[in-house]
Parts: sequence; structure tokens; C-alpha cells
Amino acid sequence: MPTPSKHSRHPVLTALGTAIRQSRRKLKLSQEELAQLVGMDRSYIGQIERGENSVAMLPLVAIAEALNTTVAALMTEAGL
Amino acid sequence: MPTPSKHSRHPVLTALGTAIRQSRRKLKLSQEELAQLVGMDRSYIGQIERGENSVAMLPLVAIAEALNTTVAALMTEAGL
Repeated sequence: MPTPSKHSRHPVLTALGTAIRQSRRKLKLSQEELAQLVGMDRSYIGQIERGENSVAMLPLVAIAEALNTTVAALMTEAGL
Repeated sequence: MPTPSKHSRHPVLTALGTAIRQSRRKLKLSQEELAQLVGMDRSYIGQIERGENSVAMLPLVAIAEALNTTVAALMTEAGL
């Protein structure tokens, strides 16, 4: 899962990453804490937040749940 | 991209696949026609619609655009 995507920093991924970062910060969670909640590497969370990973649906749902939100809400926040 | 996911038929993926299929059928597009619009294999579209592929963000955005909708709207329809 932590494989960097060749599509790094696509505007879509940057927008989603920003929405995830904002949701995480609202909950006062560190990347490390979010990573532990979802059972992923901190570096993977960092990649997603920077728009460097075309994250797949299942990890995205896990991240949304850990952030007490939904994928639909994250997408709406990201304007996607 | 057409690699089947080990997470096949997860309820999240089934829900998203159903929302994509419904949007495609509203536009009276075949899987083949949608596949051509987004430059993917028909079999990959079929996998996604059946919930057999944990589709990543960039192909998902391409599919949503081809269906004249947004990822947020698809997620909302899927209850995600």
C-alpha cells in the first residue's frame, strides 16, 4: 500500500490530501496517531496528505472512519 | 490498473460499484462505451461495478467525469 503513485501531486490528490489533513487536525491527531488508528504507516498517511498517492477506496474508507467522517464528506470538502 | 484487489466484494466496493453502474445505465452507456471514454479496459470497469476492485482515486475521478457526475455524488449515492 505505501507504494508512491506515478500520478503524484495531481490536483485531485492534492485536494483530497488537504481535506484529510484538515479533518485530522480538527481532531488534534498527529499523522502517527491516525496511522496507528488505521493500521498504516505514518509515511503512507504523509504521502496521501501531500497528494503523492492515488489512494484506493478501502484505505480511504478506513481513514474517513478514523476521522469520524465519511468519504462523501471528504470528497465534498475537497471539491471532488 | 486492472489488477484485481485482494479485497474483492467488500460491501464498500459493492456499494460504490452499484452507484457507478446505476449512473452509467442512466446515461445509456455500455461498459464498453464507458471504458472507451476513460481509456480503460471493459473488464476493469466490470470489476469495479461488481465490487471486485478497490479502485484508486484517479481512475475514480475519470469515471465520475465520464458519467457527468462527481466522486462526492457517487459516494453519497453509495452511502459512503
